[in-house]
Amino acid sequence: MANALRQHQPIAPVDAVPRLHALLADDMQAVNALILQKMQNPVALIPQLAAHLIAAGGKRLRPLLTLACAQLCGYRGAAHHVLAAAVEFIHTATLLHDDVVDHSNLRRGQDTANAIWGNKSSVLVGDFLFARAFELMVDADSLPVLRVLANAAATIAQGEVQQLQTANNLLTTADDYYSVIGAKTAALFAAACEVGGIIAYRPATEIIALRQYGMELGLAFQLSDDVLDYTGVPGKEPGDDFRDGKVTLPVILAHAAGDVTEHDFWQRTLGNEQFADDDFATACKILDKHNALAQAMEHAQNHAQAAQNALAIFPDSEWRHCLWAAADFAARR
Amino acid sequence: MANALRQHQPIAPVDAVPRLHALLADDMQAVNALILQKMQNPVALIPQLAAHLIAAGGKRLRPLLTLACAQLCGYRGAAHHVLAAAVEFIHTATLLHDDVVDHSNLRRGQDTANAIWGNKSSVLVGDFLFARAFELMVDADSLPVLRVLANAAATIAQGEVQQLQTANNLLTTADDYYSVIGAKTAALFAAACEVGGIIAYRPATEIIALRQYGMELGLAFQLSDDVLDYTGVPGKEPGDDFRDGKVTLPVILAHAAGDVTEHDFWQRTLGNEQFADDDFATACKILDKHNALAQAMEHAQNHAQAAQNALAIFPDSEWRHCLWAAADFAARR
Repeated sequence: MANALRQHQPIAPVDAVPRLHALLADDMQAVNALILQKMQNPVALIPQLAAHLIAAGGKRLRPLLTLACAQLCGYRGAAHHVLAAAVEFIHTATLLHDDVVDHSNLRRGQDTANAIWGNKSSVLVGDFLFARAFELMVDADSLPVLRVLANAAATIAQGEVQQLQTANNLLTTADDYYSVIGAKTAALFAAACEVGGIIAYRPATEIIALRQYGMELGLAFQLSDDVLDYTGVPGKEPGDDFRDGKVTLPVILAHAAGDVTEHDFWQRTLGNEQFADDDFATACKILDKHNALAQAMEHAQNHAQAAQNALAIFPDSEWRHCLWAAADFAARR
Repeated sequence: MANALRQHQPIAPVDAVPRLHALLADDMQAVNALILQKMQNPVALIPQLAAHLIAAGGKRLRPLLTLACAQLCGYRGAAHHVLAAAVEFIHTATLLHDDVVDHSNLRRGQDTANAIWGNKSSVLVGDFLFARAFELMVDADSLPVLRVLANAAATIAQGEVQQLQTANNLLTTADDYYSVIGAKTAALFAAACEVGGIIAYRPATEIIALRQYGMELGLAFQLSDDVLDYTGVPGKEPGDDFRDGKVTLPVILAHAAGDVTEHDFWQRTLGNEQFADDDFATACKILDKHNALAQAMEHAQNHAQAAQNALAIFPDSEWRHCLWAAADFAARR
């Protein structure tokens, strides 16, 4: 009874990730040790550059979800550690390549690897980490898991290419946008969760539910990320997406509701990347006028709720409780 | 007897690859169909860009070796097709990323993908093909094969990073050079051959011999490639490596034998990338004076011979005969 009460105490969204880190402290220590071990290399630039991104941290949200989903499924073994490390390597490799593609100079409040070591090194060390991810997965000794993660990796790249094509294009629809973020972001969250169920040999219904949970949480995460690019968050320069000409949901919603003057504004800025000093402030005002950021946050919360609904088939447990709260966190950061 | 005579008729190096293509025509057709199928994607830029590189051809040397080694080992099945396609995808992905890193505009006599579609697309489509390679490998249903190819992929990236560090550096030794080409080029040839033996469940001695064959052939291939960059070959601009400041074996040999004036020349050109119009012609004259290209070709031929020696443990067959000649081809293109 005391246990049930404890389980049902609400977790504030902001506490979900620290709570998972606390519950999974030993597992995460094993994952971090694996990450450090597998990024070693006689070519010194590789561990240097990888350490800059990996050791510097971030929330480790994806590996945390792999571990938590494995625990939710009652997994007893060590394969979840190598899979969590592999998922983080795939994520890190895509960050390195993203920053090259976006010409980004700042990530998590630090200089990006490409700003310090140049684009060439970022491309090649990204390739190295990606290959190491697959070596790690082989250690998990499961072809079904490899299939899921290889497919996720291909889907991420597909989403990134599609994103290149929607950039600067104000004809981009909400469907296009969802197709991009489903591929570039949510596919890896989905795979990270799904593999936790696969290694525990759970029935297909549960594995599909975990995949659904990860997919919906990933959509919520990217939607709120795209809102934060206008409202600002510590460690991320607001306006990056705007200056890169990325057409995200807030813009799509505001554009649909806007008049000719606003259409001209979006076309000159996002479309043609001709910027004046106060354009970002103007963009924020237009988004505010159409309530576009709040609407996009509502989308995020709907997807977080869908993620929570996917968890309904699992019996109540502390793990389910934390995963439930993590979905809220994804939407309300 | 007639068969034995036919098998022992010498194959000129230049005929080795066409001969393998003729013997493996059905297998290569299956491989090409797989390649076309797996590069399809709803995001149209992906098949467009991939087709530019893959469908445009090249010799398909690596998949050819996978097929031939599987045949040498008496393999009966279809896994060699997916592995050959996977090996070609890994190779194509590294070409796409190489051309970004080298800022190349011409490959195989055509505009490079990055020259047509830009660096961003080349990075991301390279990632896509790399991920697809792993999906293909999962279809081969063999964790040992996945381990070998994942390790090769990491080694290629490691070699490319090391190559960045030896560029413009005239202190690069022959050992450094061999370390770079062993990783960036020979590792994939070695893996391509080794997996042909693994899927045929051959004993470890034979699998090690195939790996050795591929490794030595790969060294011969890269050595002769680096010589061809000075002597010229159709479809490749001579002097690319020179203008990129790459310190290859011919330069290392000539530099070691050169005087102060020549050291200054190499430092200004390869070291500092300050070029005058007739510098490439001067470089060729210096290499000629020290017999450096001929010496590098001798290295290539020694490695080709080592590749041939590795085949000695296999019984005589048409496959062994062709693989023998392919090693010659790698060194004498």
